[in-house]
Parts: sequence; C-alpha cells; structure tokens
Amino acid sequence: MTEDLAKIKDFRFDGDGEFDLSACPTSLEVPDEQLEFYEAALEKNAKKIAKLQEKLFAAGEEGVVFLIQAMDAAGKDSTAKHVLAKCNPVGIFDYSFRTPTKEELAHDYLWRGHCHMPVRGEIGFFNRSYYEDVLVVRVNGLWKGYKWPKRCFDMDEQDFFDKRFRQIRDYERYLYENGYRVVKIFLNVSLDEQANRFIRRIDKPDKNYKFSAGDLGNRAQWEQYMAAFQDSIAKTSTKKNPWFVIPADQKPVARYLASEALLKALKDIDPEFPEPGESAKQEMAELRAKLVAGEI
Amino acid sequence: MTEDLAKIKDFRFDGDGEFDLSACPTSLEVPDEQLEFYEAALEKNAKKIAKLQEKLFAAGEEGVVFLIQAMDAAGKDSTAKHVLAKCNPVGIFDYSFRTPTKEELAHDYLWRGHCHMPVRGEIGFFNRSYYEDVLVVRVNGLWKGYKWPKRCFDMDEQDFFDKRFRQIRDYERYLYENGYRVVKIFLNVSLDEQANRFIRRIDKPDKNYKFSAGDLGNRAQWEQYMAAFQDSIAKTSTKKNPWFVIPADQKPVARYLASEALLKALKDIDPEFPEPGESAKQEMAELRAKLVAGEI
Repeated sequence: MTEDLAKIKDFRFDGDGEFDLSACPTSLEVPDEQLEFYEAALEKNAKKIAKLQEKLFAAGEEGVVFLIQAMDAAGKDSTAKHVLAKCNPVGIFDYSFRTPTKEELAHDYLWRGHCHMPVRGEIGFFNRSYYEDVLVVRVNGLWKGYKWPKRCFDMDEQDFFDKRFRQIRDYERYLYENGYRVVKIFLNVSLDEQANRFIRRIDKPDKNYKFSAGDLGNRAQWEQYMAAFQDSIAKTSTKKNPWFVIPADQKPVARYLASEALLKALKDIDPEFPEPGESAKQEMAELRAKLVAGEI
Repeated sequence: MTEDLAKIKDFRFDGDGEFDLSACPTSLEVPDEQLEFYEAALEKNAKKIAKLQEKLFAAGEEGVVFLIQAMDAAGKDSTAKHVLAKCNPVGIFDYSFRTPTKEELAHDYLWRGHCHMPVRGEIGFFNRSYYEDVLVVRVNGLWKGYKWPKRCFDMDEQDFFDKRFRQIRDYERYLYENGYRVVKIFLNVSLDEQANRFIRRIDKPDKNYKFSAGDLGNRAQWEQYMAAFQDSIAKTSTKKNPWFVIPADQKPVARYLASEALLKALKDIDPEFPEPGESAKQEMAELRAKLVAGEI
C-alpha cells in the first residue's frame, strides 16, 4: 500500500522555481479508513530511522538537525515523538526554542541554536529554531526594539530580513560543509484545524497543560505569520538544505511525511558501523580466547 | 611624542591589495631609549580603553572580540594584560583556545568560539581562536584524521582551507552585522626572538610554568606556520574585519600598537551612556528627595 501514499518529494522545496505557500495544501483529505495505512507506514519508518540512528551514532561522522517550525498546535512535539519513537534516546538531543532569555538576547541570534547543536553522530530535534528570528520577531516587530548598533537595523524591514535570510543560508551551508544535515519541516496547519485542536486542549483535562490563552493571540496575526513563513521558506530553501512543507491537518499524514523527510536524509548519509582495524580485530580475538579460558 | 610613534594604520590589512607576510617586519628596531615613549602611550591608551569599555558595557549595544594569534612566546597573554590593564574585569570575558576537547572536536569547528562569544557590551579576549583550525590544523594535517563525511574533505588541501576561509569571512560578516567587532591581531615575532624568550622562561624560575618542551617542536615547522598565516591573513582580511600584523620582537611597541587597534575599534563604536527617559528621570528625582528626607 505504501506506493499509494503521498510522496515526500511533492512537498520538498529546494529553491528551484517559485515557492507559493498559499498553494500548499494543509490537508490531503485522505479518507479516514485510509489513515491506518499512513500509521503503519510511519511505524515502519520509525524502525528504519532507529536502525540508521544507531549506525549514525556508532560512526560519529555526521550530525542531523531535525527542525520543526509551525503555528501553535500544528503538532511539532507529537510529530517528533512519533518519528523518533523507536530511537535510542541517548543519541537524540532535543531543544525547544522558548522565549529567549536576557542572556540569549544579549548575543547574536544564531548563538543559542549553535550552542545547542548536537554533536556529529547525534540527531538533534529542534522544536522551533533560529527561524523564530525571522518569524515571531518579524510579525511582532520585535527587532526594532532590540538594543542594536545603528548599522544593524538602519534599513527597511524587507532589507533587514533579506539580510537574515542570507545569514541563515550561509550558516546552513557551513553546517552542511562541516558534517551536518538540517532537515527543515514546516507543519502547515489550517486556521480551522488549529481552533479544533485548541478546543480539544481545553476539553481534555490531560491536555490542559498544553493550553495557553496567549497562544490564541497569534490567530489574529495568521496572515502576517503566513507571509513571514512564505518569505522565509522561499529564501532559505536550498539544494542541500531544502524545506518540507507538510500538510498538517491530518496528523497521521503529517507524521508519515515528516518521517519520510528524516529517513531520506539518513539514507543519504548512509552511515555504517565503523570497521575495526586489523590490530583491533586481532586484539579482540586474543581477549575473547582469554575470556573463554577464564584467564581474565 | 605620540606623533613620532609607529602608526597602527601601517599594520592594518583589509583585503585591499596584496598581502605579503614576508615583507612585514618583526621589529621596528626602536632604540631602547625611545621605548619608554611607547610605554607611556600604551598606558594612556589603556586608560582610554577602560573609559570606553565602561560606556560599552552601560550601552550594551555592541560587543568586541579582541583576538590574538601568534607563535608561542610572541606575547599574546602579556599584550592583552597590558592593553586591558585598566578595564573593569567584570566587563571582560576571556577565553583561551587550548587543544580541543573530544566534545569540541565532535562539533563543527566554529562551535566552541561561538559558544564563548561575549555578550554585546562586553569585550571578549580570545587567546588564539577559531583561526587555529586553519593554522595548527593545517600545518599538522590534522584535518585529514578527523572523522568527517567524505563530502567535507574529499578535496585537496588548498580547496579545503579556501572553503574554511570563506566560512570564516561569512561568520565574521554575520557577527559584524549583528553588533560585534572582531579586532584581529597577529603578533609577528621572529624565530630568533622566540628563542630568546624560551631561554628566559627556562632561566627565570617564576616563568618556568610557561615553558613546555613541546612548544619547541613548532620551531622546526616555522616556515609552514608562516605559510599558513600568510594564506589565512590574506584571505580573511576584510574592510569590516581587518587583520593587524604587528611587529612583536619589541614588547612595548607590540603592546602599544595592539592597544591602538582596539582603541580605534572602540572609538568607531563610539558608545554612550544610555540617556534615561523622562519618566525615569522624574522617578529618580522623586526617589532622591525621599532618600534625602529619610522617608525610605
């Protein structure tokens, strides 16, 4: 049945051609009875991801940042939970980009993300990321209120963010050239589906902790957020560090597609268990014999 | 007498024109009796730097990285000590780039320097820096032994380091655009003077702790190091982030020139104490009156 499922390549943007967020679906309207095929395929992928993660960890050559941006309640945490479900947590590093602290604001904006980079061999899950600095910071005009030297913000908004897009492209290219892959996921949820999810968070006592009245404020800024996502994704999608704009109204579909994006990156890396050298093999054989003989 | 002293602008390289390290003096051969003028001028500069540092700290808008690269015994630490002598240590952040730890090596090479960036408002002194990754790493061929994905090092040495130079230029441009100045000093010491200083470290008991037999190994690699410095400085000198190649055989001259480079950067920043707003002024006036009246 996998061949009938949606294909991740149809949701991949690498800077080739125009990017138009308004033309990207928030739902593929998969009939309910077919969602189980997505769930089954997701589970298979999660197992494959876990196997590749073990090799990635053993090899220690390449690191992966699995980065999810989205509006509230789009499913960032639950997507990561399902995609990484079978992985050994020891090789997973996760970091949530909450409201920046005073110390973080006193540094350059890529600082906190860089400080929290996984080592090579790990998968780092970024719940939000340095992209917040071209999203919430833009929509709310926060950049104008920061303490900056004049040369840093003495320009109009478009120029300011175009500069940031270039800085982010440079940064991600640098990461790629130094042994990292950044898998960038945008979970594209609709305004209506977001309302449904907020309602569920209010109705279900064990989801209440996820609800914050403040999150509703962003609903009035939906169009500005979509414009900021449009500009950000259009200008930071590259061959090596593409964006995946995934319809997120149906969770099984979104999770499956996100798992496909991560799995593809891991397959591209193609990690292998390191092969011990001849002397290491000989040493192991000798030690094995001694262990068997009870000598050590 | 200051007008007779060497001028820092003559030792500044910003990418305009050819850079030729072999034509850069290691000594200006200032007669001994004139060195005191350099010492006096250095002391004046150190006071000016301290005043500007206080404003820099109060304003909190811009950060400075004062970065010194050099061969061993060229005077990195003592230069920083004299240039920053009058500063409030609270606003100074210092970091020495020693042999990288396992964790540092498992990250990208700009990671540890970025994690140790001063906040805006501070001066960070980097004793060595991420430039070690285009110097010692190059001279000793260490990059070939790192665990990398193939795409990162499947090229010849020149291409590999040219890529790093571009990455460093991008990084330093990003820092500049985000409120930082990187003042890059190369203390240009001669092979002969280095020998003298090592001898003094051996002869003086209270300098013994600075001596390490391992440091002498680099003397045999002097030419390779100079070639690596030549290439690094030529390719990472830019208008915004120039290199200062300072003759270092005479310590008072080197220290004075390094202080000039930092002072110039601070003057360019031109930090000001923040002006309190009208309401803050009014509040202060009211609280002052209450304090005087013994009411609080």
